[in-house]
Amino acid sequence: MRIAIIGTGVVGRTLAGALQRLGHDVVVGTRNPTETAGREEWAAAHVPLRALGMAAAGADLVVNATNGLASVAALGQVGSEHLAGKVLLDVANPLDFSQGFPPTLGIKDTDSLAEQIQRAFPEARVVKALNTVTASVMVNPAALGDGDTTIFAAGDDPEALQTVVGVLRELGWQDIVELDGLHNARGLEMWMGLWVRLMGALGKPDFNVKLVR
Amino acid sequence: MRIAIIGTGVVGRTLAGALQRLGHDVVVGTRNPTETAGREEWAAAHVPLRALGMAAAGADLVVNATNGLASVAALGQVGSEHLAGKVLLDVANPLDFSQGFPPTLGIKDTDSLAEQIQRAFPEARVVKALNTVTASVMVNPAALGDGDTTIFAAGDDPEALQTVVGVLRELGWQDIVELDGLHNARGLEMWMGLWVRLMGALGKPDFNVKLVR
Repeated sequence: MRIAIIGTGVVGRTLAGALQRLGHDVVVGTRNPTETAGREEWAAAHVPLRALGMAAAGADLVVNATNGLASVAALGQVGSEHLAGKVLLDVANPLDFSQGFPPTLGIKDTDSLAEQIQRAFPEARVVKALNTVTASVMVNPAALGDGDTTIFAAGDDPEALQTVVGVLRELGWQDIVELDGLHNARGLEMWMGLWVRLMGALGKPDFNVKLVR
Repeated sequence: MRIAIIGTGVVGRTLAGALQRLGHDVVVGTRNPTETAGREEWAAAHVPLRALGMAAAGADLVVNATNGLASVAALGQVGSEHLAGKVLLDVANPLDFSQGFPPTLGIKDTDSLAEQIQRAFPEARVVKALNTVTASVMVNPAALGDGDTTIFAAGDDPEALQTVVGVLRELGWQDIVELDGLHNARGLEMWMGLWVRLMGALGKPDFNVKLVR
């Protein structure tokens, strides 16, 4: 699949590398490819860097791996015409660190970042997933609990949801809970409220939950 | 231990019965003991019903099992003089169902019900725990995943926290994550945002998570 990752932080880089190793045709979108290519971590990454709109133009799947508080603006630079009809996997969290750690949610529980993105880009097919774990766990679920922890995916478009579920399976996720309706992203983003505190208590970000039912 | 449960809903009744079976001296506080005693579910419960203040007066541990949006008012009727110095286990969630299901949080992520209770009753020693699971799971963790799921406890007072951890162990909890600081209750209450949606998706409330780290 042709996949465009939007965002050049650790999440974007980790997903880009993993999806490329799975055989996908991956490009990373950034405001300034020349500048990004000059950074040490990207020089070693061997993933093509493209300007934002160009990256998404040829993609089947666009991944929002930008800072959650800036995602709508960043995707605006990608361009609604390049997102129309695309599956848009939103892995970001609207974390507000302005008051220090732990962060608060910049979007409270009557809305979600994923829904804001969907409203801003109504022709995109937004799916929320992977935002509940740290980057290294996103692409290597086997590292925790013999691979038997749980990941969640929420979306309005059943076909887009299944596309994302397929990618999750390729990444090694076995226990995938599908939530029907993008509004469920509110719950997935609210999980961050506990996640950030558990990270503080455990002293590490590589943990997850197994949903026992 | 002398335990006063405040609240006569399913959570209060379930906790009262379980703690009584463990050998504790349990009373339940209610605005109108005569009225409560006349209800079918309490007629069969064999737990002493007391007026609110009287229930808490003789207790070592007070459990807030009232409706989260009314908890501060209900505990006000118990009386700050009857809560002073007591361990106050808050198991409630500030769920606002006024807009239907799923509920929103009546207290957003820059505060928590547990902290509001602590501020209203500064001499109580508030600990948040058990709010992350349904009543039947609170008292019977063995029913899920061979008993190996996770419960959380957060508080400012180390001794009060250990008192609650002891009660959790008696109830059968083996994997107890202690969070240092009552502010962590914000995360435990925000978990409800995902919990209520998982309840909807799973079609049942008896589930929990195992923290895999």
